[in-house]
This record gives sequence, C-alpha cells and structure tokens, in this order.
Amino acid sequence: MIDKYIEKAKILLEALPYIQKFSGKTIVIKYGGAAMENKELQKLVATDIVLLKFVGINPVLVHGGGKEITSWLDKLNIKTEFIDGLRNTSQEAMEVTEMVLTGKVNKEIVGLINSAGGNAIGLSGKDGNMIQGEKIDEKKYGFAGNVTKINPNIILDTIAKGYIPVISTVAVNENNETLNINADYVASDIAISIQAEKLIYLSNVEGILNEKKEIIKQIIAEDAETLIKNGTISGGMIPKINSCLESIHGGVNNVHIISGEITHSILLELFTDFGIGTMIKKKE
Amino acid sequence: MIDKYIEKAKILLEALPYIQKFSGKTIVIKYGGAAMENKELQKLVATDIVLLKFVGINPVLVHGGGKEITSWLDKLNIKTEFIDGLRNTSQEAMEVTEMVLTGKVNKEIVGLINSAGGNAIGLSGKDGNMIQGEKIDEKKYGFAGNVTKINPNIILDTIAKGYIPVISTVAVNENNETLNINADYVASDIAISIQAEKLIYLSNVEGILNEKKEIIKQIIAEDAETLIKNGTISGGMIPKINSCLESIHGGVNNVHIISGEITHSILLELFTDFGIGTMIKKKE
Amino acid sequence: MIDKYIEKAKILLEALPYIQKFSGKTIVIKYGGAAMENKELQKLVATDIVLLKFVGINPVLVHGGGKEITSWLDKLNIKTEFIDGLRNTSQEAMEVTEMVLTGKVNKEIVGLINSAGGNAIGLSGKDGNMIQGEKIDEKKYGFAGNVTKINPNIILDTIAKGYIPVISTVAVNENNETLNINADYVASDIAISIQAEKLIYLSNVEGILNEKKEIIKQIIAEDAETLIKNGTISGGMIPKINSCLESIHGGVNNVHIISGEITHSILLELFTDFGIGTMIKKKE
Amino acid sequence: MIDKYIEKAKILLEALPYIQKFSGKTIVIKYGGAAMENKELQKLVATDIVLLKFVGINPVLVHGGGKEITSWLDKLNIKTEFIDGLRNTSQEAMEVTEMVLTGKVNKEIVGLINSAGGNAIGLSGKDGNMIQGEKIDEKKYGFAGNVTKINPNIILDTIAKGYIPVISTVAVNENNETLNINADYVASDIAISIQAEKLIYLSNVEGILNEKKEIIKQIIAEDAETLIKNGTISGGMIPKINSCLESIHGGVNNVHIISGEITHSILLELFTDFGIGTMIKKKE
Amino acid sequence: MIDKYIEKAKILLEALPYIQKFSGKTIVIKYGGAAMENKELQKLVATDIVLLKFVGINPVLVHGGGKEITSWLDKLNIKTEFIDGLRNTSQEAMEVTEMVLTGKVNKEIVGLINSAGGNAIGLSGKDGNMIQGEKIDEKKYGFAGNVTKINPNIILDTIAKGYIPVISTVAVNENNETLNINADYVASDIAISIQAEKLIYLSNVEGILNEKKEIIKQIIAEDAETLIKNGTISGGMIPKINSCLESIHGGVNNVHIISGEITHSILLELFTDFGIGTMIKKKE
Amino acid sequence: MIDKYIEKAKILLEALPYIQKFSGKTIVIKYGGAAMENKELQKLVATDIVLLKFVGINPVLVHGGGKEITSWLDKLNIKTEFIDGLRNTSQEAMEVTEMVLTGKVNKEIVGLINSAGGNAIGLSGKDGNMIQGEKIDEKKYGFAGNVTKINPNIILDTIAKGYIPVISTVAVNENNETLNINADYVASDIAISIQAEKLIYLSNVEGILNEKKEIIKQIIAEDAETLIKNGTISGGMIPKINSCLESIHGGVNNVHIISGEITHSILLELFTDFGIGTMIKKKE
Repeated sequence: MIDKYIEKAKILLEALPYIQKFSGKTIVIKYGGAAMENKELQKLVATDIVLLKFVGINPVLVHGGGKEITSWLDKLNIKTEFIDGLRNTSQEAMEVTEMVLTGKVNKEIVGLINSAGGNAIGLSGKDGNMIQGEKIDEKKYGFAGNVTKINPNIILDTIAKGYIPVISTVAVNENNETLNINADYVASDIAISIQAEKLIYLSNVEGILNEKKEIIKQIIAEDAETLIKNGTISGGMIPKINSCLESIHGGVNNVHIISGEITHSILLELFTDFGIGTMIKKKE
Repeated sequence: MIDKYIEKAKILLEALPYIQKFSGKTIVIKYGGAAMENKELQKLVATDIVLLKFVGINPVLVHGGGKEITSWLDKLNIKTEFIDGLRNTSQEAMEVTEMVLTGKVNKEIVGLINSAGGNAIGLSGKDGNMIQGEKIDEKKYGFAGNVTKINPNIILDTIAKGYIPVISTVAVNENNETLNINADYVASDIAISIQAEKLIYLSNVEGILNEKKEIIKQIIAEDAETLIKNGTISGGMIPKINSCLESIHGGVNNVHIISGEITHSILLELFTDFGIGTMIKKKE
Repeated sequence: MIDKYIEKAKILLEALPYIQKFSGKTIVIKYGGAAMENKELQKLVATDIVLLKFVGINPVLVHGGGKEITSWLDKLNIKTEFIDGLRNTSQEAMEVTEMVLTGKVNKEIVGLINSAGGNAIGLSGKDGNMIQGEKIDEKKYGFAGNVTKINPNIILDTIAKGYIPVISTVAVNENNETLNINADYVASDIAISIQAEKLIYLSNVEGILNEKKEIIKQIIAEDAETLIKNGTISGGMIPKINSCLESIHGGVNNVHIISGEITHSILLELFTDFGIGTMIKKKE
Repeated sequence: MIDKYIEKAKILLEALPYIQKFSGKTIVIKYGGAAMENKELQKLVATDIVLLKFVGINPVLVHGGGKEITSWLDKLNIKTEFIDGLRNTSQEAMEVTEMVLTGKVNKEIVGLINSAGGNAIGLSGKDGNMIQGEKIDEKKYGFAGNVTKINPNIILDTIAKGYIPVISTVAVNENNETLNINADYVASDIAISIQAEKLIYLSNVEGILNEKKEIIKQIIAEDAETLIKNGTISGGMIPKINSCLESIHGGVNNVHIISGEITHSILLELFTDFGIGTMIKKKE
Repeated sequence: MIDKYIEKAKILLEALPYIQKFSGKTIVIKYGGAAMENKELQKLVATDIVLLKFVGINPVLVHGGGKEITSWLDKLNIKTEFIDGLRNTSQEAMEVTEMVLTGKVNKEIVGLINSAGGNAIGLSGKDGNMIQGEKIDEKKYGFAGNVTKINPNIILDTIAKGYIPVISTVAVNENNETLNINADYVASDIAISIQAEKLIYLSNVEGILNEKKEIIKQIIAEDAETLIKNGTISGGMIPKINSCLESIHGGVNNVHIISGEITHSILLELFTDFGIGTMIKKKE
Repeated sequence: MIDKYIEKAKILLEALPYIQKFSGKTIVIKYGGAAMENKELQKLVATDIVLLKFVGINPVLVHGGGKEITSWLDKLNIKTEFIDGLRNTSQEAMEVTEMVLTGKVNKEIVGLINSAGGNAIGLSGKDGNMIQGEKIDEKKYGFAGNVTKINPNIILDTIAKGYIPVISTVAVNENNETLNINADYVASDIAISIQAEKLIYLSNVEGILNEKKEIIKQIIAEDAETLIKNGTISGGMIPKINSCLESIHGGVNNVHIISGEITHSILLELFTDFGIGTMIKKKE
C-alpha cells in the first residue's frame, strides 16, 4: 500500500528538474482543435494550466472559436463564405463571431480554470487596447484582419497581479471597428511581445513529420525552413510552421506543436522526457 | 474673441472644487436605460468617464444588457417569460444572455472608452472569481440568480494598474453554472465591496419625486425610508431605492439617481452646483 | 437653465485632449511681470496652477522679485546701480533681496496656492543645495551671479511627494555666499535639469512678433535664430529668446512666451486651440 | 508507452489540491533520527524540501546533531554523562558540539539542498541574534540550556529573499556563552515565532499509537492530552507530545509526527491522502 | 604619536552606545538664544546637526528670530510694543518678521548646515500647510497667534527623502493671513505631531535649578509640576516648563533644556554620560 | 571637567568628513593574523565593525582560521603537510577545517559582533551557493582549491536587510565536495563581485615598505607592480600584493594593508588623517 504512494512521490520528483527550469517563465499556449471541442479534454487542459501556475510558471492562453462560431452563425442563418481558406466576415457575422469568442468560448475557459482552483481573467483584444489590427481586404474578406500592433501591458499587468490571462483573438482598428484575426498568428505575436520562454500550439496536428511520416522530436528553425523548401512540410502546415519560425526569430526560445487529443499533453511535453510533439528551437 | 476663451477657462475652474473633492475617490456608475440605447449618448458617456479618470477620479462601470438581449433572443426564436418582473431564464437563454452582455454590450463600451482616449478593461463576474451567486428558484426563474459574494480584488487590481473596469453582471455558482443577475443589485454590492465614495444610477428615472412630483435634490436615507412607508415612493421605484439604501448602510457615502437622457448628466451631477437628479446620503 | 450647464460640461470636455496629452508631464512656469504685481491676477494664476496639478500635470513655479525688491531697498535707503542692465548688488542689498524673494514673494505665492486648495512648498536655491552659482564680476556687479550647477533632486523629490514646488532664484557659491540670479536663466536651467515637457515664460511680452508686428503662434528654434540674425527680434528680447533656445537645445520640448496680463493665460495656452502667445519648438 | 506518461501526469495532478492548499504557507520541519543518519535518505529529504520550495511552499529546517556529535566527542576522548536524559555539557564538549552542529551537519544539509537545485542558507542560533537561551542548571548540566527568546527576523528575512533556512540549534546567553538546546523544543519555539502553518517532526517514531498500538492518523490536541493522562502515551513520547501541544497552543495549525525511515515521508504526508504518521490539530 | 590617535578612536567608540540607542529616532531641536546670535556657535551647531544625521538620527530644527527681527524693525523705524511679554505685531511688523524669519534666519541656518556637508531644507509654517493658527486677540496683539493644528506630512516627507528640515515659526490662519507664533510652543507641537523621541530646547538657560540653585540632571514630569507649585520654578521658566510638560503628556519621551552657550552642547547631552542640562521624562 | 567632554565632542566631529565620505559604501575586511588570535583584540575589532555599521557604512568580514585549525588537527592527530606553502588537505583534514572555520571561528566572530550591539550573520561559501571552486591538483594538495565563481546575491541580500555578513572561506565544487580556499584570494574575489569601495587586509604586516624599510602610506597600483619587479616587494608579500592589484583591476577603489596588532587599526585607517598602513589605489 505505502509503496504505491512512495511511487507517486517519486513521480512528483521526476517533474522537479522541469519545474526548476521553467520557474518564473512565461509560456503562451495557443488553445484550439480537439482539446477545445471535447468537454472532458477542456477540463483536463484547465487543470494542467492551474498546475503550471501553482508550480511557479506563468501560462497565457490564446484561443480561437472553431466550430462554435459556425454553429451560432448557422442558428442565426448567417451565411459566410471561405475565400483562400479565410472566412469572408460580414458585419453581422463579425458581431456573432465576437459574441461567441469573447462572451462564450472565453468565459467557458475562464470558468473551467477557476473551477479547477485557478484565478483566470478573460481578455479580448479590445481590453487595454491590446490587439490593434487592420482589414486585410475589405471587399474580399470583410472584417477579417491582420495584427498591426500588440500592446502587451495588460497581459503583463494581470500576470504581475497573479491572474492567468485567457485571450480571445478579436482586434480593433483605428475606426473602432471589430476585426476577426487568425488565432495562430495572434498567439505568435503575443509570445513575441511579452518575450515568452515558450509558445505551445495545442492543435489537431501531432507535430512535424519527417519523410517517413514519423514525428520529429526536436528541430532547429533553419532545418524547418529546409523542410518547407524541399516539400516535406506542405499544405496547411506551411502557414503554421511559418508562424512558429516568426516567433523564434522574434525572440521566443522554443515553439512546440503538440496534439490536443492526447490527455495532459501540455504536462507531458513540459514535465517529462517523453516529448509528445515537435519542439522547434533556435540554432545555438 | 479672446474673451470667449477666457470664459471657457473660467468654466474649467468652476469644476476645480469638485475635482479636488473627489480626487482619488472611486465612483461606481450603474449604466443603463436610454444612455445605453442611443449611439450618440453612448459616446458622450464614454467621454465623460474618460474625463473623470484623467482628473484623478476612479470610475467603475457596471452595466446590464437591456433591449439588446431581448433582440438576440428574438432573432434566435428563444422565448422567455417574465414572472413577477423577473425573466425566467432557460439554459439556452442564459447562453445568449451571457454572450450579448459579455461579448457584445461590454465590448462596445470598452471600445468606446478606448476610442475616447481611455484605457478600459471589460470584466464579467466570472473573471477573477468576482461575482458569486446562487439560483433564486430554479423551477420558477431558471438561471436567474442572486449575489452571494463579491470578490473585489480584480476590480481593485485593475484600478491600481490604471484601467477603467467595465463590468457585465454575470455570476457563477458553485457548480460553475452561469447566472443572470439584476444589474442594479450588483452595482450596489460592488460599490459596498470596494467602499466606493459614490454610486450613480444612470437610468430613465429623473430622481425621487416629492408629492408635488418635483425632483428631490438631496435626501437623507432615513427620510427616503419614510417616503416608501407613506407611499410617496411606489411601484418599480421601491426596489431601486431599497438598493440605494442598502449601499448607504453598507458604507457608500452617497447614491445618486440621475437621468441618462440628459446629455453629460454624470458631469453635471458631479462637477456643477446644478444637480440634475436625487442624491441620497447618510444622516450625519 | 439646464442647457447652460450642458454647455459648461461641453467646455470641460474640450480640455480633455489637452489634459490627456500633458498627463503626468512636468511644466516649468517662470512667473513674473504684470501677473505678479496685481493681487487679482496673482490669485487667478494660483488657481490655474492648482487646476493643472489636479488634472495630473506637475507644475513647477520659478519666480523673481521685481518691483517688490526695489520698494524695500528704497524703504531702507539702500541705493543700487544698474550696469549693463544688471543690478550691482552690495552685501546689504543682497540681504534685502534674499529676504524679499524668499521670505515675502515666495511665501505669498505659496499662501495663494494653498488657499486655492493646492499643496505648495516654497524653495530657495539654498534648499537641498539646489542652485549653485558664482559671482559674475564682483567688482562690477557685487553679488549678482551665474548658475554653475542645478541639483534637481529636491524638485523631483517634492513633486514625487505631491507638492507644487515654488522656487525663488537665489543661489549659493562655494564660500556659502548668497547670490542673486536672473530668474529667466534659472527657469531655463531648471527646466533642462528636470527635462520638463514645457517651459512657459509668463511675462509682460505677448510673444515673438513678426515684421508686421503680429504675434507668431509657433516657430521652430532654427527660425527663431534667423529672426535674431535678421534683426526682427531685437533689444531686450534677444537674451529672453536665447534663454528659450538654450532650453530647447537642452531637451525641453516646447518653450512658450505668453502675456501674464491676460486672465488665465496659462490655461488658454495649454488647454485651448487658441494659443495666446508664441510657442518655440524643436525642428522635427 | 505514452499511457505510462499520462499516468505520471495524473499523479502530478493528484498533488494539485494539496499544493493549492499550502501555497505561500510556511512549514517548519524538525529533521532528525534515521533520515539524518543515512546518506541516501538525506539526499531524498533534500530533494523533497526543494520540491516544496518550487511549488510555492516555504520550508524551514531545524536540525540537531545526533550520533555525529557523540562520534566526534569520542574521537577527541571527551567524556560526557547523561543526567535525566540530558547531556551534561562541559565547555570543551560544547565547543565540539557547536562545531559539529554548525560546521558539519548544518553545512552538509545546505550542500545537499543546493546540489538538488535549491538555495539554502545555514543559520545557527547566533546568527541575527536568533536563539537566546539560559543555562538550565550549570552544576548539573553545564552548557545545556533552555530557550528564553526567539528573534524570528532573520528567518523571515531569508525566506522573503527566497532562501531555504537550515537552522542548527545552538543558542547564546547574555554573557555571549554558547548553549546546547534540545532541537525538538527549538523547532516548536521557531514554528510559534513565525506562526508557521505546520510543524513536522521527522523522527524515528511512526506517530502516536492507540491502545491497540495502531497509528492514530489525526487527533485533536485536547484528546492527546487525555492520552497522556490515561497513560496511552508514555515514556519518551511525553515530552515530544508536550512540545507538539505547546506549538498548537502557540498558534501553529497542525503538528505532524512522521517516520523519517519511510522514503519521501514529507511528500507522502503533505501531498497525498495517505497520511503516514499522526497529525495533531486544534479543536475547531 | 599613534597613541594620540588610538585615544581618538576610543572616544569615538564611547559614543557608540548612544548612537545605537538613538539610531533611526527623530529629535526636535528648538534653536534659539546665544547659540543663534554668535557666528561661531552657529557653525558648530550646524556641524553637530550634520553629525547626528550621518550617524542615523533624524534632527528637525525649529527656530525663532530673536534679536534679528528687532534689528530690522529698527532699521525700518517700525515701532512695536510688548504687552504681557508678547509683541503686539502690526501688519507691517508681521511682514518684516516673516521676511527676517523665513528669508534670512532660516536660510542662514540652511546654508550653514549645507556648508557642513548636510542636506537641509528650509520650511516655513506655510509650506505644505504645515502650521495653522489663529490670532490670540487682534486688538491687543495684532498678528501674534496660537497654533490650532500641525500638519506633519511635509516634515515626515522631507525626512523620508533624507533632508534635515529647518522650520521657521510662521503660521497662516483661515483667511490666509500670516501669524507670528512663539517658537517654544511650535517646537513642542511639532515634536508631538511627529511623535519625536526627544525635544531639546537649546536656550540661554542651563536647565532647571533646585533650591540650592544647582542644575537638576533628570526629573520626572510629575516632580517638575511640584516644583512649579512650590515656587522653585518661577517667572519666565514657568511657561517654558509647561511647554516641556505638554510635550511629555503628548507622547514625546524626553525633553531636554540645555544651554546653547556651551560649545557642542547637543553632542554632550546626547552622546556622553555627562549631561549638561536637565532632562524631563515620563514617570515609568 | 566640562572641557574634557567638549574635547571629546570635537574628536567625534573630526571623524565626520570621513563618515560622510564613506556613507552607504561597502568595505570588505579580510580578518586574520594577530587581531584574530588575541581575545582582547577580537573584541575591539568587533566593536570597530559595529561602529562602522551604525555610522552608515556596510562592512563585510572575510576570515580564515589560522592557528585554530592546526590546533584541532593536532588534537585529532591528523597530520598534514605543506607543499609550496599550501596545505595538502586530506578529506579528514577538510572535515576538521570546515568545522573549525564555519562552526567555531565564524561563530565566535558573529557572537562578538552581536555582543557589541551589532547584528551579524555567519555565512560559509556553501550558503546561497556563494563560493564555487575547483581542486588545484588533487594528488598534490587534496581538497585545497581555487575560486571559480562568486555568487554575490546572498551578501547583497543580507546587507540590504541590515546584517553584517561574516564569511568563512569554504567553497564547494560541482560534486558537492567541500574545498579549502586561501582567505586572501576569497576576500579579493568577493570585493570585486560586490564592487566594494575598499578592501582592507587586517594582517600581521604593517604595510608595504620602501627601500629604507619605511611604510609607504599611499601607492598607485602601477608603482606597486614596479616594486615587485625591482625586488623591493619580495617573498610572501608578492602573492598578497598581487591579490591587492587584482582587486584594483577588478574595480575596487582602494586596497589597504594594515596591521591588526595596532588597537582600533580599522578606525585609525578609515577615520583619521593618520593612516597606519599602506593604501593602494588606481591611477587617476
């Protein structure tokens, strides 16, 4: 009986070197994909985040809205069209998008983290003038936008006061219009603006695959660029990896791509030698 | 020509005694009614709030959702019923209510304040575990709730960092369920929890009227209680005034009821000797 | 009736963009000329200063003694001579000068600011070793001196603690002798030493005039130098403008020359688009 | 393979409620007995301590010297006698005792904690005037003493600066003479002086046994007193339990008696529902 | 040769127990009488004050103007009359009194302290609204006044920033009129308002004398009261001693009366066992 | 009688210019030689150190163990051999060395300083990971080591909290082995790591002697190098002087070599114009 518990204590201690390494560091987690659709996984992610905070690491969550947005647009019979993989967002669709992202998805995550014993604060890009953007091409994409500037003060202020910031990826432009921004890009821009130690993409992708379709555990930024050039990385992965590389060039030490479908994937990636996805790092 | 400007300077200086009096004080403003329906009034209220902040006063906004909620419930064909003046809120209706309050109305106010040069942060009662509540009577009213506890830390922390908090009146209960709370009551509870100098109800009511239907400029809490007993205050005004009296008994120095239909009513009430509504105060 | 008050609120809000712009900035005001001779203007200047402080701007006053010194020298039958526009100050005259500047004029200004609800502290150049000087030419000018060093700590310390510093322009030399210093020069040296946003000369001059004897509203430092060279600026204005230019070259963003005879001239210059004098600025 | 790691993550999360509960709290650990004799156990205790610190708990170690002192006294042929269970300590023996406690045992613990990635500071009761004492009975016991006063500043100061204090139980009296003090008593006095959340006795005893010789998991202070009166607790356990009770009466919330022979006993006691020893607590 | 220096080091160390005892404490020194008339004594007092500051004690100087005021009134042919030992101060005389106190005597002391390597700041009772007063009896005494309130913030703020405050005893009343206040009383009121450790009257009196005309080294407040009742203390000493007693009752630990004619009397009184005057203390 | 005391006050004031000069500065004192062997000198040094602290200077003591180590090695019959002037330290000898340095000599100094009214904290190189080292040549010298890195945080932290750090010169290497380090070298490395104003070697040497065997009062670092080259400095003085020069090159302003046999030599060197040893300084 007691041996079982001693075994548990040993496992706790296996995490110690990782806790020491990341103590006081800030880690941006882009939260999306399967981990966000499934009620049970959502709860587990929330608990993982709270554990990080209590062992002295500062997690910052950035999330999109995924299927939830489509579902509400459908209920309201608002039709939207995808052009080149980007949603052409009308004003009406933008209103619904903002409400779902900021008033539903964001608050659900905040509620789950708080239920797990954490102290989260939900922020939209409008709060504290955090995310400023501009329309990409109004005629083609409507209110879909790009980031022009991140004002990181509100993130740093809320971390300093002990909160876990949960950020929905809505921006404003100079005319106080609301814009919809790709959450992957926002996560990268935020990680750079606060000079995060790590950026973790929690997604449906298991990581970067080599030619044999095996997950590459670690790769230097330059080598990842080569994989794009030689076609090993292709299709939808290209913008994702480019966003990773931009983070690295902007001063983020490591970017991880891990699967949100694996239970406790964040803890596995950070606190064990196992490593379940791909870590991209700067050439030393 | 120059005389016109000298006249302006004199008017600035007329505000000085009031600015001195309220310098460094916190003022909770319950924002609702006409001032929230009308685009033009919304902008003016936002500018008034920013002025308060820049002359050294700390405004805290508390808002409900009013007609906007009804409008979205209609669009989605969700029917709700009012029982004893309280909306019987189904889970579906609650989801929409939260989205509209927190993802639309709140963010519009934040956007307007920021456009006017302020630095606002939108908070729901879930953020920082701020508003905890319980269902009033689940069978009768569904997810309509009462406040059980206010945790004022997130309000105080964001004021200390220089932000203008804008609060949507959504609460959570112990099961992490979202509850809809009467914004007037939340405003009073928040004003007490942060020991605000003043609580201002910006509403469609001009103030408390005497028997001759004239606005009473100032009244002591005890006298307001007498007016309720002798029937001068009646109908829908009774719960509003009771909420005011509760604030006074809880330590808020003054509670004002002013009309949001009057342009710049907040500034008129705070910075001139005119006084456009009713001020309830503690017996000295 | 109410419209008159709404009008007043609008005028308050017209000042908001200027308040936002100068919020937290330090502004040195050289106080002299008509505004200092007239009891009524004195009170108005004090009130203007207090308003600045309460809307978040940090005013620093620097003053000379003007006619008051001459008047007390006369009462005491102490004769002084002006050589090249500089008073040849005997030890006896210096004693009287210091007493009038530091013990009378300074304390009157402090009293007026405090009466207007401010919190002023009177400082002489001796306090906190602030102004160090040397005699210009003892034989010719006696105890008239030049600034050799400004120690800005006491100014910064008193601002940090919330006071409005009011500075009389007396210096000490290495032998602990008291020196009389030109107040215009001290104001410029102080503005540089604390890297003030603005330096405002409140004087009997309306500003820099162009060839048609009209006030120039704004001028770049380089262009002001040209006006000196081509003779448009001449006579007693030359040292005044040189002192302005020195401030600009030392890092002060703008220097204003405005007439103290105009009621509320400081507020007009800072808080309206009117602009009553001349603003000298750095070439961008 | 991955399942094994997911299992580990789950075990980490089992500790979360305990980490949350003790976050920011101070825990005094009296370190002695088997855990201090055995090289391997020493290292494990050091690692446990470092883990506590990194998950946000403030451990304070208090240690005696045990067998090490006897061993060096033997090497030096210094004979000491035990009277009523107390070592009669001559001046010569006191010198050796202090050297071993403060110069050997203390520094070994500091070294082990630092090797495990912690940041320990070794303190004797002389440092910062921490432990003041008086001789019990000079003729009978020589330099054996009692605590007269604890000055907790140096403990609080080093915790505030992020160190793990490791305290050897040497005191000084008013004549600057060094005294040897019972480490159990010092631990209790220190826990009271810093109002620690918990005091843990890591000893050779498994806990308090009931009449059936089974470990009592939890007991209220009053009930422990009864067990002393009715003889269930007897012999050498009586002073130990009295010291526990004194801590409880002095404001320490819980006192634990656990066996140092069990691997990771500190973590088992704090971070699992298992509970390996006895916890004494205040009646609620 | 070296022995002479070792002797000096020993004398330094004799002061150590006193330095330790008063380290961090605040001591108000009422500066007047002979020590203020004589140039050489002035310099020595300034040096004593600077030494106090550098060894960690916070001196606060309070001074009157003495003969200097009379001398300037004479030069200006302003006649004043003493009624019951109080100067009937006309407005004209008040102007001169303020200039001499604040613009001459105060600045001389500031200059001497700064020359001795200190960092003094001269304050009048007007600065920071420090001393508020009221006229005693306008018809009889003109602008002679009593203290109604001390606002100690400016004294505490300047001590906190490392300055030595030097205070001239001028007050303002509610109409912003300047009043002349007895410096002994102000010193006592200030010592109480900042809860000083000690108040030292540096005067022409050697201390309290007993019936045999010998200086009483130490006396309990109650016993001093008895000496007044039985006539041992009489005449001009009565108000002085009453002012001392008021300080003691207001919370000042000790009040000293020492002669300013003795060189370095402050250091002798504070740093040696000699004690040159009388120390009045609270009954323990 | 009184004149004797006035004389004492004058001597106190003679120290003022030196106190002002070193106020707030940090001074490392290498404590060894005669001053450490003699009980009476020990007490005097402790008092000198406490005086420095109370007049606003921050002393840091670094000490070796000298004869005390040899004496205990003898008692324990542990033989050690000196090779090239360095003790070949076996593991057993190292254990004794550490115990004597850290558990005896260090604590004696701490006790003496505290008895003199100071607040000392004893630190070994292990505390706070302060001194990291490596073995010089294990075969030849055993556990004798060199410094590889000083981590000054614990010194700065304890000074900031008001303590007097007393440092024993024991280091750890990467394998958590204890090393014995030359105290002169450690003192120099520590003085550099905290950028001390001065380093004082309190030793058996009176200073650097010139060709006529007279003490050189002051010498520039370059000139001291010349004296080594031309043989004026020779033998055991060469490593001592090299250590001084290294400190100067590392940023320490002055290094003093003074005799610990002279009573109060630290005070004489710092607070009088006498100067009893040699001061080495940077070329200006």
